[in-house]
Amino acid sequence: MTWPGRYTDTGVFVCFEGGDGAGKSTQSALLESWLLEAGHEVVLTREPGGTDVGVELRRIVLSPETGDLSPRTEMLIYAADKAEHVDHLVLPALARGAVVVTDRYVDSTLAYQGAGRTLATDEVEHVARWATGDLRPHLTVVLDLEPDAGLARFETRDRIEGESLEFHTRVAAAFRAMAAADPEHYLVVDARAPREEIAAAVRARVAPLLPQAVAAE
Amino acid sequence: MTWPGRYTDTGVFVCFEGGDGAGKSTQSALLESWLLEAGHEVVLTREPGGTDVGVELRRIVLSPETGDLSPRTEMLIYAADKAEHVDHLVLPALARGAVVVTDRYVDSTLAYQGAGRTLATDEVEHVARWATGDLRPHLTVVLDLEPDAGLARFETRDRIEGESLEFHTRVAAAFRAMAAADPEHYLVVDARAPREEIAAAVRARVAPLLPQAVAAE
Repeated sequence: MTWPGRYTDTGVFVCFEGGDGAGKSTQSALLESWLLEAGHEVVLTREPGGTDVGVELRRIVLSPETGDLSPRTEMLIYAADKAEHVDHLVLPALARGAVVVTDRYVDSTLAYQGAGRTLATDEVEHVARWATGDLRPHLTVVLDLEPDAGLARFETRDRIEGESLEFHTRVAAAFRAMAAADPEHYLVVDARAPREEIAAAVRARVAPLLPQAVAAE
Repeated sequence: MTWPGRYTDTGVFVCFEGGDGAGKSTQSALLESWLLEAGHEVVLTREPGGTDVGVELRRIVLSPETGDLSPRTEMLIYAADKAEHVDHLVLPALARGAVVVTDRYVDSTLAYQGAGRTLATDEVEHVARWATGDLRPHLTVVLDLEPDAGLARFETRDRIEGESLEFHTRVAAAFRAMAAADPEHYLVVDARAPREEIAAAVRARVAPLLPQAVAAE
């Protein structure tokens, strides 16, 4: 099955992806500040947990108290979070012309539940694409970081962060492969670079996507 | 895509399906008692909610406090419950030779989230079959009841029970159609019949499925 992807004509959808500790939150916030100063409506959100139901689902999949879950259960909880996020937050915001900046999206599911958990990748992609109506970000920024460096930043780890180094190595390779296959919609940056340098590279790719009227002000 | 179905060689998997108020709980309990008296290990369970995570997911999808959910979100939460139920409760019980009696299974998702919510039926089926590894019950008992008669038994309704009569009419028709397509694995009974009469009809279909050594005692 082919997935041509669906890109909205209104609004701008930007996604930050990468391993844990790569700096997605920092870069999302820096991009948000820059966009707000330029007069854009910005919706800063994340997966899982961008909606009320998403917050509950996030707690279930990430809490160590949840214990062992079937890999398909985990995948389907993430997919449920995505469906709610897209239908009730992302699409309405894009429809009114906002810039939506999300910390993680479908690629994380393909990387963590597909490559990481080694579920059949085509099935994981099928479910994730169905959950989101195959909505794609106009730009996905991959903050590339060797797994050991990223994990070392955390003293306590959630259910996913606590996985093995091999798991996180597969995840990082999956992000790089997705970016390499679609350079028009991806930007890969070395997460160890200075944060202002990374932020400038992100802005350079986001600027051409913004509505001209506002961007020219 | 065809779904040939997967039936375990060990254990017996029986499912009760039908609209709300059709008497599934009553009939499940009557079957359990009969099986226990005959010396079988019985696991009485339900969807959603047959596992610890399932209890949390059940609360989310059924609580009126959850409010409006995207139809795909609802479907995917049910699917997550199923994956956990099958992998961590149903399959282990069948593997050790138990009789698993479940109150609702995949057919409920096809009927409620497919026919009821009018999501694309093939996609709902794809996700539900993937979630369960296409495990099928050896026998599904459909307790057939006109929707208005069933709903009238409840004074307060959950998120699903509160749906329209048209919704529940589509659900009832979907159960009948699934049963008609596979008479070997289905039994349809009129839910208004006396409960002992229904229980006897169920026992007559379950008996030939039981391990001979125990059934002959």
